[in-house]
Amino acid sequence: MIALINGSFSNIEEASLHVSDLSIQRGYAAFDFLRTLHSQPLFIDDHLDRFFRSVDLLRLKPGYSKQQVKEFIFQLIEENKMEVSGIRMMMTGGFSPGGYETATPNLVITQHVLTAPPTEDLKQGIDIITHEYQRVLPEIKSTNYLMGVWLQQTIKEKGATDVLYHQNNTVTEFPRSNIFMVNDKGELLTPQKNILEGITRKKLLHIAPSFMPVIEKNITVDEIKNAAELFMTSTTKRILPISQVDDTMIADGKAGPLTIALHNAFLTFEKESIK
Amino acid sequence: MIALINGSFSNIEEASLHVSDLSIQRGYAAFDFLRTLHSQPLFIDDHLDRFFRSVDLLRLKPGYSKQQVKEFIFQLIEENKMEVSGIRMMMTGGFSPGGYETATPNLVITQHVLTAPPTEDLKQGIDIITHEYQRVLPEIKSTNYLMGVWLQQTIKEKGATDVLYHQNNTVTEFPRSNIFMVNDKGELLTPQKNILEGITRKKLLHIAPSFMPVIEKNITVDEIKNAAELFMTSTTKRILPISQVDDTMIADGKAGPLTIALHNAFLTFEKESIK
Repeated sequence: MIALINGSFSNIEEASLHVSDLSIQRGYAAFDFLRTLHSQPLFIDDHLDRFFRSVDLLRLKPGYSKQQVKEFIFQLIEENKMEVSGIRMMMTGGFSPGGYETATPNLVITQHVLTAPPTEDLKQGIDIITHEYQRVLPEIKSTNYLMGVWLQQTIKEKGATDVLYHQNNTVTEFPRSNIFMVNDKGELLTPQKNILEGITRKKLLHIAPSFMPVIEKNITVDEIKNAAELFMTSTTKRILPISQVDDTMIADGKAGPLTIALHNAFLTFEKESIK
Repeated sequence: MIALINGSFSNIEEASLHVSDLSIQRGYAAFDFLRTLHSQPLFIDDHLDRFFRSVDLLRLKPGYSKQQVKEFIFQLIEENKMEVSGIRMMMTGGFSPGGYETATPNLVITQHVLTAPPTEDLKQGIDIITHEYQRVLPEIKSTNYLMGVWLQQTIKEKGATDVLYHQNNTVTEFPRSNIFMVNDKGELLTPQKNILEGITRKKLLHIAPSFMPVIEKNITVDEIKNAAELFMTSTTKRILPISQVDDTMIADGKAGPLTIALHNAFLTFEKESIK
């Protein structure tokens, strides 16, 4: 497997960063992650737009243009010949002499084997827990996952699969996914504030209005627990139903009809996007 | 200059981590930082205790004992022959196959040239700004400095040197230092909650009671701005006076007599600790 570091090919085994890089010293880096299907990068322009917005908001000066990064990604796909994969692009704070000030960013692009959620989860949904926490600078896709990784043990101990963040009872997002609910009026709701705007979320907001009314608004933990249908969205998971939140079963505890309809519509949309 | 990676010597130029390390992927690592004087590590047991506490609280399983890390540090001092330096030890989340789950931690120990604050700053004090933010898992010395590094540009734009965090007007700490104030009764106050307990802070809490009453308690931004004397403590800076907070000058805008007395007492204490 080949990786790209600052535009140069490297065997993945040798893809390293010097310990003075600010990503290591201070957890300071922007990144993005896209999926390939039939060796085509899905929604690549959306991902690149968001990546460069994250880099800019982190006050880093990229040494590469969006177009150059795009070409790097196509080169990597050409080299590695993986039909289905995840591609991770990262722009770090750079080799910092003092270990605190940003320097010339390092660009790391890697390709990964990607496994879709088990079919069982798509039918039965997953269990989640809730946790009070607000991500720092939430509009930036940074490598700051201290809380998300730290909570992995708690999630396992509770027999759950993921954790939904809320602040003062208003839900925001998962560490790596967005949340959607269908209420008893058949409306699709999703939070708008203090979140990272996912690309799958964005595409779903485009697709869903032909199925149902769609509203971006604040949602409470109680509303989530009383949802008619509940699901999460992410690049890796697409649309994944949720059947339990803490100790509360959601509706009849399996994927709802609108969730299934949206999932099918998304699969079609995804295929059409790479025609 | 020599570094130590997982107990093996490496030229600092070659001290790298594979990009799958969780410190790079997710900003997940514990670290600590101590100072050497006359080639002796200062308060090394305090630093090692805190380091291993951080590692444990991060739910990482260290592959080395405290005693082994201590020996590594002495080996590094022996090799590099720097009388005055900073030594940084880091335990990362390890090479994570999935890029999210913790693995076997990597231990990185590096030695650095260290410059003391300018004499002018010790006399005249530094300017600081305030910013509303609460560090995540504050009792852990993790590499999560997203906010601290991000604010560097803001600090410079305002002509200041550092930033003091507060939450709902209650001050906590600087990104890398603790805060102390002397009030108009001559009492020394410092926050106790939601902070990282600095080693310099700890030593000062031991030294100061022979000079004045010492109280650990919540302090507001207003109280800080009306302090008789104000200073910060850290391993690098020892005791550094603060003469301005946002637009407010502190007392007569230079180092106060108790600050100077405590600084001298700390210098003596530091020397005696390595006799």
